[in-house]
Amino acid sequence: MSDLNNSVIFPKGNKMPEPFSKNFIGQAYLHMLVPGDKEFNCPIGNVTFEPGCRNNWHKHLGGQILLVTGGRGWYQEEGETARELKAGDVVKIPANVKHWHGAARDSWFVHLSVETNSQAGPAEWLEPVADDEYNKLK
Amino acid sequence: MSDLNNSVIFPKGNKMPEPFSKNFIGQAYLHMLVPGDKEFNCPIGNVTFEPGCRNNWHKHLGGQILLVTGGRGWYQEEGETARELKAGDVVKIPANVKHWHGAARDSWFVHLSVETNSQAGPAEWLEPVADDEYNKLK
Repeated sequence: MSDLNNSVIFPKGNKMPEPFSKNFIGQAYLHMLVPGDKEFNCPIGNVTFEPGCRNNWHKHLGGQILLVTGGRGWYQEEGETARELKAGDVVKIPANVKHWHGAARDSWFVHLSVETNSQAGPAEWLEPVADDEYNKLK
Repeated sequence: MSDLNNSVIFPKGNKMPEPFSKNFIGQAYLHMLVPGDKEFNCPIGNVTFEPGCRNNWHKHLGGQILLVTGGRGWYQEEGETARELKAGDVVKIPANVKHWHGAARDSWFVHLSVETNSQAGPAEWLEPVADDEYNKLK
């Protein structure tokens, strides 16, 4: 199992704080590199997922970009096949597209999360990814 | 000398294209991860500087964030002391602040460049960093 327990390049940070943690299954860690503000409109966080950890379905009102720095994970948009992710991959998530992302069952997973056009408002969190859907992913 | 000839995590890309290359002293490489558009308003590029390479003084109308992924380099704002940069460092560059960034004389340097609020317009490029000013930096 790829062990990224110390994250990649950027700090792993602390356990995902409330109120975000309730939108995750499993343990994730968050280190904010750039906090949300009205100047840059572009909060950036380093997110580390333990094996099996993923977030619930959600939407960003202004979009989001994922820059994968380590491990192996998944990204899925509603109605689409899940896309496998590894270091160096980039995901462009348009505004209002329902999606989830997280680690593979057997690997840690680390990505930078860039929230674009954050002045549009906070993410809208939805239902968890069904276990039987997630467990199909190899 | 730290050799990041193959860049870090993200592709090194090609030699900095015109018209950007004329705003650099020395050789830099650019791989765009997210092109500029009116949807995300957040172009992201992976920039690799050869030892001694730096860009000219410039300003971003909407600001810029640097996420350093490898090597050793410098960031300087007009009227301020240069700040040494290494992997894991983050630089928040407010809109309209005159600055430059680049490699140390004896090291490659790699950062992600996140252009924030890019709808504000393109960067404004100014004069080169004076050799005697750059050469003072260790």
